[in-house]
Parts: sequence; C-alpha cells; structure tokens
Amino acid sequence: MPTIEQARAWYADSDSVHDFDHVLRVYRMAERIAQTEGADLIIVRAAALLHDAEGAAPGHESRADHHYASAEFAAQVLASENWTPERIAAVQHCIRAHRYRGTEKPETLEAKILFDADKLDVLGAIGVARVIGYASLAGEPFYEQPSKQFLETGKEVEDESHSAYHEHLFKLRKVRDRMFTVTARAIAEERLNYLDEFFERLIEEWNGKR
Amino acid sequence: MPTIEQARAWYADSDSVHDFDHVLRVYRMAERIAQTEGADLIIVRAAALLHDAEGAAPGHESRADHHYASAEFAAQVLASENWTPERIAAVQHCIRAHRYRGTEKPETLEAKILFDADKLDVLGAIGVARVIGYASLAGEPFYEQPSKQFLETGKEVEDESHSAYHEHLFKLRKVRDRMFTVTARAIAEERLNYLDEFFERLIEEWNGKR
Repeated sequence: MPTIEQARAWYADSDSVHDFDHVLRVYRMAERIAQTEGADLIIVRAAALLHDAEGAAPGHESRADHHYASAEFAAQVLASENWTPERIAAVQHCIRAHRYRGTEKPETLEAKILFDADKLDVLGAIGVARVIGYASLAGEPFYEQPSKQFLETGKEVEDESHSAYHEHLFKLRKVRDRMFTVTARAIAEERLNYLDEFFERLIEEWNGKR
Repeated sequence: MPTIEQARAWYADSDSVHDFDHVLRVYRMAERIAQTEGADLIIVRAAALLHDAEGAAPGHESRADHHYASAEFAAQVLASENWTPERIAAVQHCIRAHRYRGTEKPETLEAKILFDADKLDVLGAIGVARVIGYASLAGEPFYEQPSKQFLETGKEVEDESHSAYHEHLFKLRKVRDRMFTVTARAIAEERLNYLDEFFERLIEEWNGKR
C-alpha cells in the first residue's frame, strides 16, 4: 500500500483546485464511506490516493484521459509493491470509473465509493471554495443573474458570463442524484443544502438586501 | 451626479475581486447605511461610484496610492458636472479616507459610511467568495492549519502558506471592530458570524469530520 507521503510527490505539479489537498479529502471521505458500507479498505485507499495522479490539472493535454493515464500509473506503482493482478485490476476499475462523464461506470462497491467521495468534494463549504476558486482562475464572476435561456437549457446567451452561480445551478445541484451509496447520498443532501444557502445569501448580499 | 453606466467604463480594466461588481455592492450598501444614518445621499453615492476608479487592481503600480488617484479623478469628473468646490472636497475626503490602512481618517458621516460599506464587502458570503478568490489567484490554499507563531504574531513560519483561513483570522475577523456607524456594525456582526461558521465548517469537511 503506497503511503500518503509517497502519494504527495505524484501531485507536485497540480493546481490549487485539483491539488493534493483534494486527494487527501477524497481519501478521508472514501475511507469513511468504505467503513460504513463494508468495502475493501485497502482497494479504496489505494484508488483514492492514485485517482488523479496523472494529468488531472485543467489545461493539461491529457485532462480528458486522466483517468486512463492514472489507472496505468496505478498499475505500475502497485505491481512494484507485488500486488496481485486481480487487486491491481480492482483499483484500476475504481480509477477509470470515477469520472462524472466517463464511459466506464462503477460496478464494484469500491468503485462506487471512489466516485461518490470524489463528487462530494464539490459540495458543502469545500464546494463553495472550489467553485469560487475555479471562477476566479477563469476570470469569471462569482455571480451574474442567469438568463432565461440558461435556466431552461444550460446554454448562455451571447455576452452572458458562466459565473460560479451558473456552475452551481447547472452542475453542482445535480451531483447528489448521481450518488451510488446510501452513505454518500445522505452526506450529499446535507452539503447541497449548505451550498444552496450560500448562493441564496450571496445573491441577497449582492443586491444589498442583507 | 455620474450615472452607474458612466461609472462602469471607469472600471473596465479591473480584476475579478476589485471589479465593478464590488463598486456596485459598495454603492448599494453605502446608500442603505446613508438612508438609515441620515447622511447626504448624493455625496455618498458619488464617492461610492468613484472610490476605486484609479488603479485599484492589485499589482497596478499606483495600488498603494489608488485613493489619492481616485480622489483626483473624482474632482475632474464632478467639476465637469459643475459641482461646487465644497461638495467636490466632501467627496474627495470620503475617497481619500476609505483605505483600511490609510493615513487620512474619515471625519464626516459620509466618509465614515463609505469606509464602512467598503469593509462590509469583505464579510458574509461575499467575504467568503472574495477571500477564496484572492487565495486562488495568488496560488495559495483555501486552508492550512496555522502555526502557533502565526496565531500569536500574524507572521508565518518558514514554508507556511498564507491560506484564505490565515487571511480570515488575521484580517477579516478584525474588520467589525473598525466600523464607524452603528448601522454598519450590526451588519458586520451578522456577516462575521457567517464567515466564522463557513471556516469552521470548511475545516470540519477538510478533515473528513462532516
């Protein structure tokens, strides 16, 4: 089993949103869900530490394929520690299936847990920080009143910014319904309420109402 | 009185944290406090629209003097609208005295209101967004456990990041006590509670406790 200190070095080049802190949060969350759900802790921990190891930084040329690259890298790391092919394959499935829009869907409990833990990191106070951080790095505003077209179709009209609030409405609010495990769904519910309330409050303050 | 649309053009070059949205929020907040406190609304509105007009973007060479440059710019704008020298001077005093660490302190009710409205924009949900946005743009983490030395002196030890949480502890938590008006102090109190709770929650989530 790779250590956290070994894992830190794999993420030295990443940006502040997809950084090693994200990996550590996913690791702790995946561990917590795995304990409640009775999953294989060693598979879940290894998959969490390795899930973004290759090319997760936005703008990196292999961003779209980072789950494949990370799964390959995982095989090398675990083979060097003499893991069995079956257990390496189990970790690789978790990593390949963790993407929100990936083609390989989580089939094992361990893969479902990694998927859920990774997505929980876009909700709650962490979700607030990450969606605001992304908007800042992209030069987008925190809030802009979405157009009627955006609210109906998710496509901005001309000159409409994709604000952090747009991302919340169109992506983050849907994450809860994608959760596989009961444990994660309960955490997602509570975290989504927090995120909703943050944006409600932000808009009230923005308009001088609070 | 300059219009909001005129004012928008003065801020075309600014960044996403000190942008025209900030100016509009300060404008609405200053107006709200001025109505409650019985201040001169025209002076307050003009000062709010003009307060960051010159060089407010961080990294701009005149950042440290942006309040002087903006006060000069304000005089030009208002003179071209045939304001009296006394009323121009009143707006200029508001602008020069709005800086947190400025040498000219607010002496009139209108200047106190601009100062308070500007500082309220670092608290509440807006404060969360701005402190997280700054950290992202600076490549700093959202959260890092502050050292004992930082907690006692405000100076980081070697290799310690100045995270958004550090900024919260060392600067944002002190803003409430700098408010001049009773109206602003009550709003600051409520917004500071929100900001405190955000970071409490962020840290719990960060450590997998929530």
